[in-house]
Amino acid sequence: MEKVAVIGIGQTKFGELWEKSLKNLVQEAGNAAIQDSGVDKELIDSLFVGNMAAGSLTGQEHLAGLAADWLDIAGVSAVRCESACSSGANAFRQAYMAVKSGESKAALVVGVEKMTDVKTETVLTSLMGAGDAEWENYAGLTFTGLYALMARAHMNQFKTKREQLAMVSVTNHKHGMKNPYAQFRKEITVDDVVNSGMIADPLTVLDCSPITDGAAAVLITEESLANNGTAKEPVWILGSHASTDTIAFHNRASLVEMKSVKEAGRKVIQKSNMSHNKIDVLEVHDCFSINEIVCLEDIGFCGKGEGGKFVEREEITHNGSIPTNIEGGLKSIGHPVGATGVRQIVDLTRQLRGDGFNQINGASYAMALNVGGIGTSAVAHVLSKNL
Amino acid sequence: MEKVAVIGIGQTKFGELWEKSLKNLVQEAGNAAIQDSGVDKELIDSLFVGNMAAGSLTGQEHLAGLAADWLDIAGVSAVRCESACSSGANAFRQAYMAVKSGESKAALVVGVEKMTDVKTETVLTSLMGAGDAEWENYAGLTFTGLYALMARAHMNQFKTKREQLAMVSVTNHKHGMKNPYAQFRKEITVDDVVNSGMIADPLTVLDCSPITDGAAAVLITEESLANNGTAKEPVWILGSHASTDTIAFHNRASLVEMKSVKEAGRKVIQKSNMSHNKIDVLEVHDCFSINEIVCLEDIGFCGKGEGGKFVEREEITHNGSIPTNIEGGLKSIGHPVGATGVRQIVDLTRQLRGDGFNQINGASYAMALNVGGIGTSAVAHVLSKNL
Repeated sequence: MEKVAVIGIGQTKFGELWEKSLKNLVQEAGNAAIQDSGVDKELIDSLFVGNMAAGSLTGQEHLAGLAADWLDIAGVSAVRCESACSSGANAFRQAYMAVKSGESKAALVVGVEKMTDVKTETVLTSLMGAGDAEWENYAGLTFTGLYALMARAHMNQFKTKREQLAMVSVTNHKHGMKNPYAQFRKEITVDDVVNSGMIADPLTVLDCSPITDGAAAVLITEESLANNGTAKEPVWILGSHASTDTIAFHNRASLVEMKSVKEAGRKVIQKSNMSHNKIDVLEVHDCFSINEIVCLEDIGFCGKGEGGKFVEREEITHNGSIPTNIEGGLKSIGHPVGATGVRQIVDLTRQLRGDGFNQINGASYAMALNVGGIGTSAVAHVLSKNL
Repeated sequence: MEKVAVIGIGQTKFGELWEKSLKNLVQEAGNAAIQDSGVDKELIDSLFVGNMAAGSLTGQEHLAGLAADWLDIAGVSAVRCESACSSGANAFRQAYMAVKSGESKAALVVGVEKMTDVKTETVLTSLMGAGDAEWENYAGLTFTGLYALMARAHMNQFKTKREQLAMVSVTNHKHGMKNPYAQFRKEITVDDVVNSGMIADPLTVLDCSPITDGAAAVLITEESLANNGTAKEPVWILGSHASTDTIAFHNRASLVEMKSVKEAGRKVIQKSNMSHNKIDVLEVHDCFSINEIVCLEDIGFCGKGEGGKFVEREEITHNGSIPTNIEGGLKSIGHPVGATGVRQIVDLTRQLRGDGFNQINGASYAMALNVGGIGTSAVAHVLSKNL
């Protein structure tokens, strides 16, 4: 099988970008990745677009064909990949398989979402499309409501403290301070989080990632193109794994774990011949503060129920055992749904190149885990500086 | 690389299925394909869902995660693939690459669309999401309008006759007479087509494929599972290719050809070490009568501009040079958008097994070409009875 490398990265600023269209975002991130790679545009033969909801938010389907045209690479094989908030990582995974299979030599992955041009209610309704319409949407649940149920169950079962949840947001805001692309560059305190507006008890507004416009892109290639001298130092994809759980939260045996995250997170480490303690830098899906805690537990960076204390002990910061969301996470950087999984790969590639805004010195191995819905989908990748 | 085979097929009836939900359709087709394969459900490790517009038509995104749950195979890697009307073939293509790359051993592909529960205007607006919103939708174009422009240009440039367009529909209705899954099993005449209600001059209602509910599914596996004795006679995937053209029709140098179809159709024949005259049975995308004519020309089964005469000479029927849409095509079978590309594979697999409703005796090689938008996307596959 072909070895596969990330050789180009690009992204837009994340935020409320009212002056930029879906087209502007795709072009800005996509062209930046192509330019960064140093590879001739003519060599790109496939395009994978991660996007959840352009159809319901803007009326635009067929986004991959459109993006190929916008990027002036029409002729390529193009497909949109969707699995709610893990659409970006799934697009990256499909591109990886295309190159690994020999069907593509150079694949561009663009994750994008334009969310702030419509009313917030429209966005929330659209996002609930990631849940089980018949059993959750009609009962009035929102995604904050679902994750609040998870948070409350975790607090009851493991004595996780409200302040420990808040520490996730505080840490991610601190990590995002140096990131020029982040939506929010502002330090916050545990008191700020706890006293911010209540959304769904116990989650306040500062436990929640924001609604965001943005795009991120990576160019991946087979080994011969990655090593042809024109490309920057390649970052290798050591492994990819994706898994699923029931879509309805109430159908699960446990409300405090996500089987998909356990499976994707642990299998990708096996597939990559890695071990937890070799991973230097980690990206996980902090759409809500509780999710980062549960992901750390389910992947196995700490024991089940110990996530709150793990975060409190500062294990996820620079000097901790597993620096996590070191460029700010979804909370500080923002969460343009289809872009997030690709943005995680962009940030980890920067870290492995030694170009991070908030660099972990000597980072050699990195892992990303992107979650869709309430853990219905999870997609994980391990990247390495060396093949 | 792994060899890849289709070992199970399933589908629902196509039509106005008001009594069946998206869930019913996915379960019926998916379970039928699993059962047909004889493979243990536990062996399935990935799911690819072809669907264009469940988000805008029913509010349900994240359809692959949901389908995994509905089919009781949660745990698998799952992704929805979208490229407008070629979503089904693109889902099949991603599944093929997943197995070929070694990342999946057994992949289920389900194409589905539920279109008749909402107003026709809602469907038409949603379908226009496959075009260029800024330049086509706002100008009031519909897809029938776009293909009418293609038809008119073809008539002007090549003296293609109105009656030759009509012959496409007449032939497909005749072919569909034996298909128990077809939406319309009714013979029609050239007069019927020409005199039916005008939609966009010169295309009348009988030049247009209908709005349809339905699902189709195939199970594909690596060679060892395909040959393990429990599976039915496998049908091998010899090649896959996809291509794109500009999304806006007016940006093209020619209004009477589709570069994506030329590229996908011709490259897939090369990749498969095939030649046009070896193909025994062909599926092309007759969303509108003109599209079948242009596809036959662009793939190269007849010369440019000769498609009308080619159809008139009955070259696409049983005794013709290339039996096409032999089970009824989109026109007679129906066009549940995300399902169509998968349904093409289901019908060709039946033909290669010798189980066709309208069987071509001794069919050994088959080809499918699925088009998205006005040829913005084209996805092609070649299948074979023998490896």
